[in-house]
Amino acid sequence: MNRNGTLVVFSGPSGSGKGTVLGEYLKSHPEAAFSVSATTRRPRPGEADGVNYWFVTRERFEEMIAKGEVLEHTQYNGNYYGSPAGPIREQLAAGRDVILEIEVDGAMQVKERFPEALLIFVMPPSFRELERRLTGRGTESREEIQGRLAAARQEMAMAPRYDYILVNDDVAGAAGRLAGLIQAGKWVPARCGELLRGFLEEE
Amino acid sequence: MNRNGTLVVFSGPSGSGKGTVLGEYLKSHPEAAFSVSATTRRPRPGEADGVNYWFVTRERFEEMIAKGEVLEHTQYNGNYYGSPAGPIREQLAAGRDVILEIEVDGAMQVKERFPEALLIFVMPPSFRELERRLTGRGTESREEIQGRLAAARQEMAMAPRYDYILVNDDVAGAAGRLAGLIQAGKWVPARCGELLRGFLEEE
Repeated sequence: MNRNGTLVVFSGPSGSGKGTVLGEYLKSHPEAAFSVSATTRRPRPGEADGVNYWFVTRERFEEMIAKGEVLEHTQYNGNYYGSPAGPIREQLAAGRDVILEIEVDGAMQVKERFPEALLIFVMPPSFRELERRLTGRGTESREEIQGRLAAARQEMAMAPRYDYILVNDDVAGAAGRLAGLIQAGKWVPARCGELLRGFLEEE
Repeated sequence: MNRNGTLVVFSGPSGSGKGTVLGEYLKSHPEAAFSVSATTRRPRPGEADGVNYWFVTRERFEEMIAKGEVLEHTQYNGNYYGSPAGPIREQLAAGRDVILEIEVDGAMQVKERFPEALLIFVMPPSFRELERRLTGRGTESREEIQGRLAAARQEMAMAPRYDYILVNDDVAGAAGRLAGLIQAGKWVPARCGELLRGFLEEE
């Protein structure tokens, strides 16, 4: 069937392992496009424009917001971050799935502007396991970990507003289920408008 | 994960091949239970109680309706047909998926009484193909076929109220996709209530 790609929004608390699951999925699904965010922060050593981020000026970013050229955006530490709409719409129109890895607030912005987006929320198998993972990293203080756990609880409360839950119990299993969720999501009637209209309007 | 089975409601117009797809699915998924309907019509030669239908009296059926013991029911040619709730709830509680093959009206009744039911609408790849299939059977008059096509158009208009569309372009492919839709449907937040509550209430 010739049809548009699906816009997939991928969120989850710090420690859910969403980046790892997504990396595993993209390795076996090179046909899917990962959306590169735009930001006003300066590139760090080794970061390349169009690979890690699109690096733009503050003036340019505010122009993008004003013109509706970002699907969602946020500010963090005084810098803008957002998802440029143009490349996303082009790839969708070409039939490619596009994947956004963004925070809960951004996900809700996307859903409002792009209702057929497929929202997937990644969670660890349990709160205890999340704590274990964050502690195991060994990179953060006790207070930072408590802060992340509190944030995770708040983010988890938004899970019911997503289309699907993805429990990351093991990476390969979760990446496989992710593929199944993305495929199934294409068959929800709200994303089959063209197909249904075509059928009903047929002579 | 230890959890309830999913109640799957399967509908589609005559000629969509829904029975064939379902048969193919059940062959490779013996863990799923097909719900046997109750009816007040008399058994035909070769039909067995509890296999083709549960054969009950009119009095008993009306008692079942009054006591809420059927998840949905309809009358056709002066006889009642319906889905007994008891065996369905038992199998779901034991973790088995239960599949109902019922008409659009019954599907809407189930959705109302059992909101977490997963509704799947089977459609042929095109209206022309549906006509070809109905004509190809060679068992019905031109008028009967026109009547079925008109009914199919009406049923198709209800497709947007289902959770998923399943296009039956080829039986094996559709049965495989059906398996994917049933698995994905389990990860919709409305069907993960226990999981989400468990996570948030965890100490």
